[in-house]
Amino acid sequence: MTYCVGLKLDAGLVFMSDTRTNAGVDNVSKFRKLFTWEKKAERVITIMTAGNLATTQAVISLLEERLKAPADRAPSIMEAPTMFQVATIVGRTLRECVAEQAGDGPTSESPFGATLIVGGQIAGQKMCLFMVYPEGNFVEASDETPFFQIGETKYGRPILVRAFDKAMRMESAIKLLLLSFDSTLKANLSVGMPLDLHAYRADSLELGVQRRVEEDDAWYAQLSRDWGDALRSAFDGLPEYTL
Amino acid sequence: MTYCVGLKLDAGLVFMSDTRTNAGVDNVSKFRKLFTWEKKAERVITIMTAGNLATTQAVISLLEERLKAPADRAPSIMEAPTMFQVATIVGRTLRECVAEQAGDGPTSESPFGATLIVGGQIAGQKMCLFMVYPEGNFVEASDETPFFQIGETKYGRPILVRAFDKAMRMESAIKLLLLSFDSTLKANLSVGMPLDLHAYRADSLELGVQRRVEEDDAWYAQLSRDWGDALRSAFDGLPEYTL
Repeated sequence: MTYCVGLKLDAGLVFMSDTRTNAGVDNVSKFRKLFTWEKKAERVITIMTAGNLATTQAVISLLEERLKAPADRAPSIMEAPTMFQVATIVGRTLRECVAEQAGDGPTSESPFGATLIVGGQIAGQKMCLFMVYPEGNFVEASDETPFFQIGETKYGRPILVRAFDKAMRMESAIKLLLLSFDSTLKANLSVGMPLDLHAYRADSLELGVQRRVEEDDAWYAQLSRDWGDALRSAFDGLPEYTL
Repeated sequence: MTYCVGLKLDAGLVFMSDTRTNAGVDNVSKFRKLFTWEKKAERVITIMTAGNLATTQAVISLLEERLKAPADRAPSIMEAPTMFQVATIVGRTLRECVAEQAGDGPTSESPFGATLIVGGQIAGQKMCLFMVYPEGNFVEASDETPFFQIGETKYGRPILVRAFDKAMRMESAIKLLLLSFDSTLKANLSVGMPLDLHAYRADSLELGVQRRVEEDDAWYAQLSRDWGDALRSAFDGLPEYTL
């Protein structure tokens, strides 16, 4: 499995993904699932992937190939005039990959499926965040639903639902994502460290901070312990049920 | 879907279930999923059900029928000499129901499947808690894994993993379950109020407190608000990530 979250804040877009892939429990590997493209002062695009690894790698490779041979098939994601067009290209590429790998079989919800989060900004336009389905169609984040999760989404959802606020600072949002991942990692073996982060500042039109949070990251380990302690004391502080 | 949790504490067994069943989002009903049997000073049994409603109702009805006509097919769950035998009878009944409804089709993980939590105590023996699979086999809770969840288990798991302690008081355990259900209810429409509770005190050999927590329960509503506030201040109290 996989866990990726994309947040659309007033301050920017924050992306976080794990790096574990597995085919059964005895075939576990580490693969990057967060990809970025930049043309300074013009556009920044981030894509995160969940689902069949062969499919998601094919999608990323095809998107890359088209950048290098734009005449082949225009436009590439670095030439599309709007983020909507970028999402359309990504969705079409995903749909083609799924259809090709599935052959005559069903394409939707097949084991060849994948779901992507696509976010970014083009000069003169607003930031956008999309979730792209295996069928190639997609939805855009709004003020009512300002974040998307893909993969193993359930364990980490309650804390997002409770604490997310699109007006929060990017630093707080990253802390929130780390806690959401921590809840997931504690409960599910198919999501694993290290975690990849990209924090894009609104209107900067250049890549933001990109970090890999490693398994032995002392700050993260301390955050996880502090959160456990804080949860237990918050729990103890609530009034007791009366039997 | 459904959400049920059974906890094995030093102090007793605590069971909580929701009451929502649905076949699609436009066919939503309320059904009891927590069932108890008692023979004072001799035995107390609780069963919670998740999965296909036709299957789980058939299982409960068959177990009830066998009580009334014990000659038919001995022993019933109220006559079995041990809780292990009780779980065996329940498992066999479940397996038969699943097999009959599935006909020649696959019986495991079929839409006819159901999973049960069975717990209780027989005079002179220790309390037991089992999880019974659609195939009829079952596992018993141990000191390492002192609780079972069935149904929509993921949203409510992180708080259980963090705060559960088998030495905790029953009142605290009920509070913990309410928070685990609250996290689930906030994120998933297929789990719904009211909630059913049975708190069996170790070695009492009689039914413990049984309550239904209704949608408009003021204490529960306050607990949910307090927990939201406590989570947010615990979150705010943690050190900020440095970009």
